[in-house]
Amino acid sequence: MNNHIIEQLIELVGKDYVSSDPSDLKEYGQDWSKIFEPNASVIVRPKTTEQVQEIVKLANKEAFAVVPSGGRTGLSGGACATNGEVVLSLDRMNEILSINSIDRTLQCQAGTITKQIQEFASEHHLYYPVDFASTGSSQIGGNIATNAGGIKVIRWGMTRDWIVGLKVVTGTGELLDLNSGLVKNATGYDLRHLIIGSEGTLGIVVEATIKLTTPPKDLTVMVLGLDQLSDVYPVMETFQQKLNLTAFEFFSEQALSKVLEHHELQRPFESTSNFYILVEFENDSESTMDIAFECFEQAMEQGWVVDGVISQSESQAETLWALRERISESISVHTPYKNDISVIPSKVAEFLSSVDEIVAKEYPDFEIIWFGHIGDGNLHLNILRPDDLTIDQFVEQCRRVNPLIFDKIKQLDGSISAEHGVGLVKKDYLPYSRSEVEIALMKSIKAAFDPKGILNPGKLFDQ
Amino acid sequence: MNNHIIEQLIELVGKDYVSSDPSDLKEYGQDWSKIFEPNASVIVRPKTTEQVQEIVKLANKEAFAVVPSGGRTGLSGGACATNGEVVLSLDRMNEILSINSIDRTLQCQAGTITKQIQEFASEHHLYYPVDFASTGSSQIGGNIATNAGGIKVIRWGMTRDWIVGLKVVTGTGELLDLNSGLVKNATGYDLRHLIIGSEGTLGIVVEATIKLTTPPKDLTVMVLGLDQLSDVYPVMETFQQKLNLTAFEFFSEQALSKVLEHHELQRPFESTSNFYILVEFENDSESTMDIAFECFEQAMEQGWVVDGVISQSESQAETLWALRERISESISVHTPYKNDISVIPSKVAEFLSSVDEIVAKEYPDFEIIWFGHIGDGNLHLNILRPDDLTIDQFVEQCRRVNPLIFDKIKQLDGSISAEHGVGLVKKDYLPYSRSEVEIALMKSIKAAFDPKGILNPGKLFDQ
Repeated sequence: MNNHIIEQLIELVGKDYVSSDPSDLKEYGQDWSKIFEPNASVIVRPKTTEQVQEIVKLANKEAFAVVPSGGRTGLSGGACATNGEVVLSLDRMNEILSINSIDRTLQCQAGTITKQIQEFASEHHLYYPVDFASTGSSQIGGNIATNAGGIKVIRWGMTRDWIVGLKVVTGTGELLDLNSGLVKNATGYDLRHLIIGSEGTLGIVVEATIKLTTPPKDLTVMVLGLDQLSDVYPVMETFQQKLNLTAFEFFSEQALSKVLEHHELQRPFESTSNFYILVEFENDSESTMDIAFECFEQAMEQGWVVDGVISQSESQAETLWALRERISESISVHTPYKNDISVIPSKVAEFLSSVDEIVAKEYPDFEIIWFGHIGDGNLHLNILRPDDLTIDQFVEQCRRVNPLIFDKIKQLDGSISAEHGVGLVKKDYLPYSRSEVEIALMKSIKAAFDPKGILNPGKLFDQ
Repeated sequence: MNNHIIEQLIELVGKDYVSSDPSDLKEYGQDWSKIFEPNASVIVRPKTTEQVQEIVKLANKEAFAVVPSGGRTGLSGGACATNGEVVLSLDRMNEILSINSIDRTLQCQAGTITKQIQEFASEHHLYYPVDFASTGSSQIGGNIATNAGGIKVIRWGMTRDWIVGLKVVTGTGELLDLNSGLVKNATGYDLRHLIIGSEGTLGIVVEATIKLTTPPKDLTVMVLGLDQLSDVYPVMETFQQKLNLTAFEFFSEQALSKVLEHHELQRPFESTSNFYILVEFENDSESTMDIAFECFEQAMEQGWVVDGVISQSESQAETLWALRERISESISVHTPYKNDISVIPSKVAEFLSSVDEIVAKEYPDFEIIWFGHIGDGNLHLNILRPDDLTIDQFVEQCRRVNPLIFDKIKQLDGSISAEHGVGLVKKDYLPYSRSEVEIALMKSIKAAFDPKGILNPGKLFDQ
């Protein structure tokens, strides 16, 4: 990066907020995918929207690329700088600007940490329901750029469903002020929804207005044991018809074993099953517990469920959740190759057995760990590395199995990236989920928002 | 329209489905706005997606404009053909294709009537919650093109929130198959959301996959009398914190008087108030009614509410709803000039008094009737025609008052069209709600989807 540009950046934001320090370049140059070599030129940390606009305008003038950077907790390389880009970090734009209990909205800057939003809402007796493992470090701007999902989607939907206003700096440095918190606004194309999930390629989110809701009452957790995968959805239907489900999660016996190997946790019940379902629901009336037991008994009678347990307190609910939430951590020693994929719920059983079959046939030595948000058809497929393969060998073999899995996904009209985005990791596979015409339209839209290709170039697709 | 084109259309869909009959041209050339002179060239009624594609391709070849046409219940002229266009009616593409109780989705063609979808879902113990006055004639494709809202938005959101898959024919005749019913799909720009609310200018919706939900239990209605507008939202907050509100509607004493003049209905209670609120909630547990009474008492104690009534049966609930739902009909003899506008809820009181002031000052003879979905900040402003003005004189005067009202909306970051769309009626006013940069981006997007400007030209904006 030439000094002339660095000097101009310093002039814009002050010398304390422009860094070429190697440890900064490394830290800000990568996300949680950890498979790309970071190669950022410089890190710039603006404090105001105007500074963001000025940096983007400078990028247009001096022809340098900008990687918008939030908490970098993504798993698709969407926030990696691998090609000498300037990383524009939103870290310092982290203020909660206002909360309004009539509109039930909260306004904040893009760099605000998700958990802070949840806590701030809670202090005001309101609730921000989008929840996932990395809320303690992810920033709302990044959540928006990737349309983050997580564990409560079955009840409350994705990040998209909670964003009622958005301020965005486009690739030319113009500021868009989209929808201003309105519930109803039928005045042309909803550019807000185009920005949500665009992975920093169309604009840099600088501020958001977030809708909040009533906090759920007394969340209660059941863990159920199932022997057949095809019984998962009849169980879901049974519970869904009678209870306000807030989560419907899935893990295999293999996944549970790994958790028990690595943590001081107990099996949910004595017997083992092939699969486990974690059902969470709102205990919102006096009859809820009776209804929950009825559903459970009905599922037992039908032979779908072989055993089960229900939380009697908040701490028991947390312990049951730990069985599901600690899976990722427990398998990390095996450097798993992760695929975050989805099909519609009714096709999950077929999809899962097909993939098991493909992997068993092609790579009989690979162990597969399945878990995920099965209530919305979203599975995390984790292939564990056999001890006798180096990481490089293993990744290479997994990449060879990808097209087989993605072919099956395409055949089932599924998604090759359910909630992690495309970034660099899935870029080459995008045509498995999006048609040629769609990709061409996306490129035209990119050209309209960012004619010089300044913003996060090479992510999602090559322009 | 030259015969050569008509012959080709007949070849594509059969002679029974191409009409130049003057009564058809008139009927299909206009929507419920009724203020534009219909001037369609020919009506074509395809049966299949392929036929829709072929018609659009022909339009590209022969350079004629196409107006996509659903139930034509819109109020913004979005479906009017005023300029010799070919009207492409989706009437015959009205099949419900499937329903799936595991995925809780329903697939149907774009011409399916909204009410049929509601009824079909209900037969399968599921619920399609988007509800408004014209569900008996509006088509789902039109709902999608305008992102229809209505009376249950406070609980269930807009049409946008229920569309999980969309098949769309673009302006070049290409078929897009968007999102396929997936709950989670993070693979690039969500073109589905760009189509929703685009008023037929980007593509013709041919098929939709709709999410369904659990039917609400036992909807109960309260009507409350208020003397001060500023008390509306404290009342809403009080009820919203403790009950599952499904509607929160508003009408003025003037509106109620008009209804009582024209219908055999009773006042909700003996006393008169300046304003009325209709609260609907789900009676979902044994304690709900007690809680509702508590909220009511609290609102009385605070002096916000001066009187109230609660429905004891479904038919009483319907009678109370009639007070709100029959307003439009009751004022139609006064040929009202309607404006469908929104601000965020916390700004409604300020907005409403400002408009009252503007109209009182500029047009002291005009009577204003306010009603609307105040729970989501959406008001229907109806200015009644004084008897001594002709319709033309009246409309001209109202149009002169529009900029004053829209200036106030702009100042409050509101929307000049909350749920009726822009079409022809609001086209000239679009800059009050969208910036120059946004409109330029919309035009670029339009050019990408419809390079020859075949689809609904002159609606929303002039390309």
